[in-house]
Amino acid sequence: MAYSISNSSFLLSRPSPCHKTSLTAISHSFLSLHSASTARQFNSLSAARIRRGGVCAAVAIEKEVPENERPETFLRSADPAAVSTSVRARFEKMIRDVQDEVCAALEAADGTGKFKEDVWSRPGGGGGISRVLQDGTVFEKAGVNVSVVYGTMPPEAYRAAKGNAGADNGGAKAGPVPFFAAGISSVLHPKNPFAPTLHFNYRYFETDAPKDTPGAPRQWWFGGGTDLTPSYIIEEDVKHFHSIQKKSCDKFDPSFYPRFKKWCDDYFYIKHRGERRGLGGIFFDDMNDYDQEMLLGFATECAKSVVPAYIPIIEKRKDTPFTEEHKAWQQLRRGRYVEFNLVYDRGTTFGLKTGGRIESILVSLPLTARWQYDHQPEVGSEEWKLLDACINPKEWL
Amino acid sequence: MAYSISNSSFLLSRPSPCHKTSLTAISHSFLSLHSASTARQFNSLSAARIRRGGVCAAVAIEKEVPENERPETFLRSADPAAVSTSVRARFEKMIRDVQDEVCAALEAADGTGKFKEDVWSRPGGGGGISRVLQDGTVFEKAGVNVSVVYGTMPPEAYRAAKGNAGADNGGAKAGPVPFFAAGISSVLHPKNPFAPTLHFNYRYFETDAPKDTPGAPRQWWFGGGTDLTPSYIIEEDVKHFHSIQKKSCDKFDPSFYPRFKKWCDDYFYIKHRGERRGLGGIFFDDMNDYDQEMLLGFATECAKSVVPAYIPIIEKRKDTPFTEEHKAWQQLRRGRYVEFNLVYDRGTTFGLKTGGRIESILVSLPLTARWQYDHQPEVGSEEWKLLDACINPKEWL
Repeated sequence: MAYSISNSSFLLSRPSPCHKTSLTAISHSFLSLHSASTARQFNSLSAARIRRGGVCAAVAIEKEVPENERPETFLRSADPAAVSTSVRARFEKMIRDVQDEVCAALEAADGTGKFKEDVWSRPGGGGGISRVLQDGTVFEKAGVNVSVVYGTMPPEAYRAAKGNAGADNGGAKAGPVPFFAAGISSVLHPKNPFAPTLHFNYRYFETDAPKDTPGAPRQWWFGGGTDLTPSYIIEEDVKHFHSIQKKSCDKFDPSFYPRFKKWCDDYFYIKHRGERRGLGGIFFDDMNDYDQEMLLGFATECAKSVVPAYIPIIEKRKDTPFTEEHKAWQQLRRGRYVEFNLVYDRGTTFGLKTGGRIESILVSLPLTARWQYDHQPEVGSEEWKLLDACINPKEWL
Repeated sequence: MAYSISNSSFLLSRPSPCHKTSLTAISHSFLSLHSASTARQFNSLSAARIRRGGVCAAVAIEKEVPENERPETFLRSADPAAVSTSVRARFEKMIRDVQDEVCAALEAADGTGKFKEDVWSRPGGGGGISRVLQDGTVFEKAGVNVSVVYGTMPPEAYRAAKGNAGADNGGAKAGPVPFFAAGISSVLHPKNPFAPTLHFNYRYFETDAPKDTPGAPRQWWFGGGTDLTPSYIIEEDVKHFHSIQKKSCDKFDPSFYPRFKKWCDDYFYIKHRGERRGLGGIFFDDMNDYDQEMLLGFATECAKSVVPAYIPIIEKRKDTPFTEEHKAWQQLRRGRYVEFNLVYDRGTTFGLKTGGRIESILVSLPLTARWQYDHQPEVGSEEWKLLDACINPKEWL
């Protein structure tokens, strides 16, 4: 996903005509269609090519069209899950509510900047709302996007994910498997070097039963995370941010925070630098080994925590006085953000390779960035402390 | 290579423990060790892992050590080719002369900026000289590096390159094949938005006969190119640059300029943008289908043409008055440079993945860059004209 919809099992093989990927990867690749969007240049049957058990097949979704108005829902009217009690419907409602809440809070904090909105849909169902605020008073670039995708994927991918390849329909040739994916993703880059960058992303993926095996079980899972990327460590802020993440986690399972905090440190790793992009937060993926209602509640809790986790920090730091040196250091750290997103982020790299709408994919990049040859912060300086914490992830609580 | 040592047949498979690559790719990967350098973090037998005919094997080179002085030559004293008449020795002399000439010309043009030099060597032979000028009066960042590498590669790679797998030693188990590679590479980013960025890179690769088949023929080839990346088209400058490239080519073969001009346009293609990085120049690779002396002469001619092709443009444009808008557009184009180098350049991406010295690899990145959401230059504007020429490569002569 442009904003690093990503997953641990997603492997992208650059030169191959078939991208080696997983069931999970499909959701990520299509949630990366999060604005007017990655799919814009797709033909109805191109998109991602996936390989499973040596078979190369296309994941199919329709081309999107711009809309003048936000629809009540992006769910297909014929979708049996288009009742307000379904997980699909509740997840869509949740991410759209969160988009509204976050954008309203950001505009209020910014004071002058306003979000520009693009709405799009697909004839057969699904669509998205993309919002970007650029060059405000407080934010240099802020993007908050939601999307809902209906698509089909090859039966090989479905069978492989279920782990009983070909067994459940007597070896008969299975048809493509319909899937549904929905997500919210966001990157917020403030101007002040003491105000941190925030990224968050929550997503839900579900398959339908294949048409020829209507009783077959559905696959579903949740993924997401929220992480903080400051240029300077203001311990009070980092602790506040992490404590909100922990509080959200602890409401559901005491193992979640330590596990997802580590997962976050591991995922946002700039391998060639030996550094994390920032000071982490939480990250999880492929989550389906808990009660579905519980995980929906957990994703909702996390997404609803974005405003209380971030806005108080912005309010405190947006007007902090700073020097040219502070700004230059922020710009160097922005360079690292660019390196992570262009080189490692699976959603971004997938989006670039599958011919997505580039402005949507790269809205996660900062307005400006800097690369200075062999820059080494003085040992013990504030810049050095940040770098040290990116190299050696700390426990903040 | 940090400065886009690159080749058309190099394929890097992200998740695989074995990088699918070619004989040519080996030279590129090790020429990317062009400063104090990509190999710094290698163990003596790690480096690139390559796959040939299903076999996974390591390309081996030694770890480098810093030197206080530039040696007369980086060739091994025991190397039979260490006589001044060999192609190896003459190529090394040529790239070192060109490094001196280019650096002297750049310092003269800059007026105040001075190159900082790092010299390094490997105990068993080979080494390099890395020079970086940062934040001068005219140049924001300029790097000019030479390197010489001795290594060994698996016999599978050698046989596959020769096209007679396993046939020439009666099926006996062949040993590793020693190789030699040398190159110069450079990226020059001036400050003034009307002064273009220049990149050039020339390289030579040669294998020894395997130890168990001393009479076997050597493989060798040349690669390289020089290309121009302006933010604004000043036709007089682009014509001057291309005419020097054509003149160098025409001295050797009238087919060279049109062929290498197109190759350059094809290589420096930012696929996700549908744009070239800049206005091209020449690019060639895997060149061994001409007389070796002729190709040495050609590479020499091209490398010696850098100063007359570039310095007159810099002299004319370094003090051109410009506005904030001109600078912002230059910064957006610098963003494209970053995108090409981090996402596509085979030398850079290979270097990042094999654990190279990051400051050397990324010295090719500009000091500053910019990403503005959905920036569309006004049709007919100077910015639009540049973009159009990047989308639709033009014949400049």
